[in-house]
Amino acid sequence: MCQLLGMNCNTPTDIVFSFEGFRRRGGLTDHHADGFGIGFFEGKGVRLFHDDKPSAHSPVADLIRAYQIKSENVIAHIRKATQGQTSLANTHPFMREMWGEYWLFAHNGHLKNYFPPAGAFYQAVGNTDSERAFCYILEQLRSRFDRKPDADTLFAAVAELTAEIRRYGLFNFMMSNGDCLFVHASTLLHYIVRKAPFGEAHLLDDDVKVDFAAVTTPNDKVAVIATLPLTGNETWSQLAVDELVMFCEGDIVRRSRPEHPVYMSVDEGLAIARAAGVSV
Amino acid sequence: MCQLLGMNCNTPTDIVFSFEGFRRRGGLTDHHADGFGIGFFEGKGVRLFHDDKPSAHSPVADLIRAYQIKSENVIAHIRKATQGQTSLANTHPFMREMWGEYWLFAHNGHLKNYFPPAGAFYQAVGNTDSERAFCYILEQLRSRFDRKPDADTLFAAVAELTAEIRRYGLFNFMMSNGDCLFVHASTLLHYIVRKAPFGEAHLLDDDVKVDFAAVTTPNDKVAVIATLPLTGNETWSQLAVDELVMFCEGDIVRRSRPEHPVYMSVDEGLAIARAAGVSV
Repeated sequence: MCQLLGMNCNTPTDIVFSFEGFRRRGGLTDHHADGFGIGFFEGKGVRLFHDDKPSAHSPVADLIRAYQIKSENVIAHIRKATQGQTSLANTHPFMREMWGEYWLFAHNGHLKNYFPPAGAFYQAVGNTDSERAFCYILEQLRSRFDRKPDADTLFAAVAELTAEIRRYGLFNFMMSNGDCLFVHASTLLHYIVRKAPFGEAHLLDDDVKVDFAAVTTPNDKVAVIATLPLTGNETWSQLAVDELVMFCEGDIVRRSRPEHPVYMSVDEGLAIARAAGVSV
Repeated sequence: MCQLLGMNCNTPTDIVFSFEGFRRRGGLTDHHADGFGIGFFEGKGVRLFHDDKPSAHSPVADLIRAYQIKSENVIAHIRKATQGQTSLANTHPFMREMWGEYWLFAHNGHLKNYFPPAGAFYQAVGNTDSERAFCYILEQLRSRFDRKPDADTLFAAVAELTAEIRRYGLFNFMMSNGDCLFVHASTLLHYIVRKAPFGEAHLLDDDVKVDFAAVTTPNDKVAVIATLPLTGNETWSQLAVDELVMFCEGDIVRRSRPEHPVYMSVDEGLAIARAAGVSV
């Protein structure tokens, strides 16, 4: 299935370890063979890579490994196209500028018959439900606020818009302005916050391990969020169905969770995605 | 000095030959050692690469050569920073979405005390005069036209805005929506339109030649635009000072040239840029 990977940290961090496990699912250990995209914030700037080659065999993915880009916020997406054409314009993450900041967005899911009215500030370039949802969120935020509001107001507005859009179907997404990272689950999303004391981690999909103690300082805090856990010897937490969280500085700082949270099993999540016609 | 490279074609074309000559100026044959950026349109999508390493030694530039991306519209920029910080957010080309299309923009020059009012639709993320000029152009176009106007109207509006902005200083720029390519000269910009019968070309900066007849079809039309000519055995044309042209399908389709055109010598162009404090 399409998979999401996100990272939010309190210091610029190299995502290569997590990305290695993630990208192996792009053709080798899983069946995500239709390209991928990854966006790195560096300060206020964004480095964005899109590839229509499977991520396991992509020269762009090789470059990312070789380059060891350090970032405080990363969003990545592996795509298995089951409907609609595969084109660069339809490749996640999508990017727009709002309030003098770049925003990135990636989506895993399917919104049925979702055609919001064309925006005055933002319009989709490609023809995916995902980009339309992103543009709708930005359009609504920009229409309501001439400048970026405080974190509480922003989170409440994103939560309201998310609740509105998820009525149309599956809406697992990640969105970041380089400062905070919004993550919403309709089915499966897991996260881990790594901080001191750091230990060793083993990738599930690969015979690779890393000793984080050797590559971090005691003050580092690194949140990694992925559709499915990437490591086998660490305890990952799961987002509830319909839960929205905001990560900042490597930790969850806001959350909106249903009163009676439901946590979906992996089998159930995959079955629902399949039934909805989402690429799995 | 900062240099611009653009390509506009009637069929997706590999820019590697021109880019090789261009990027050699980024550290080897010239003194442009502060990074570069290049954007390729592929259909409505954009592939954008930025690097803060000199282009002659950049792994991103190596990737571009290895990848042989074919595109109908390309804009590239090599930067020699003389003022302001070098950061990803300040790296050309800049990108925004307007009327459901991505737009790319790169600038070589310096606009003195240029601080247009903050836009409702577009705001700069970094702190360059270049990005402010780009946002101002888009802001004015978007404010005047809810949808993309016809080519004559669009060209007239861009010409008017360009004339307004160039009062602030040197304003060599390239701007494209993946369909057409606008090019404006304040000092030095040269172009060539390659079409059948194709011949052989020799890079000025390198011991490299290419036989275009072997890599093209008779219907191909490829316009290459650069600050300085890239090849030694072809005849390049020069844009006049204050001339704006629009390339489409590999040819100039609109132009706005002063009644008494002035063509600047290379020495004069470099001297003016130096005197204006622009990176040369």
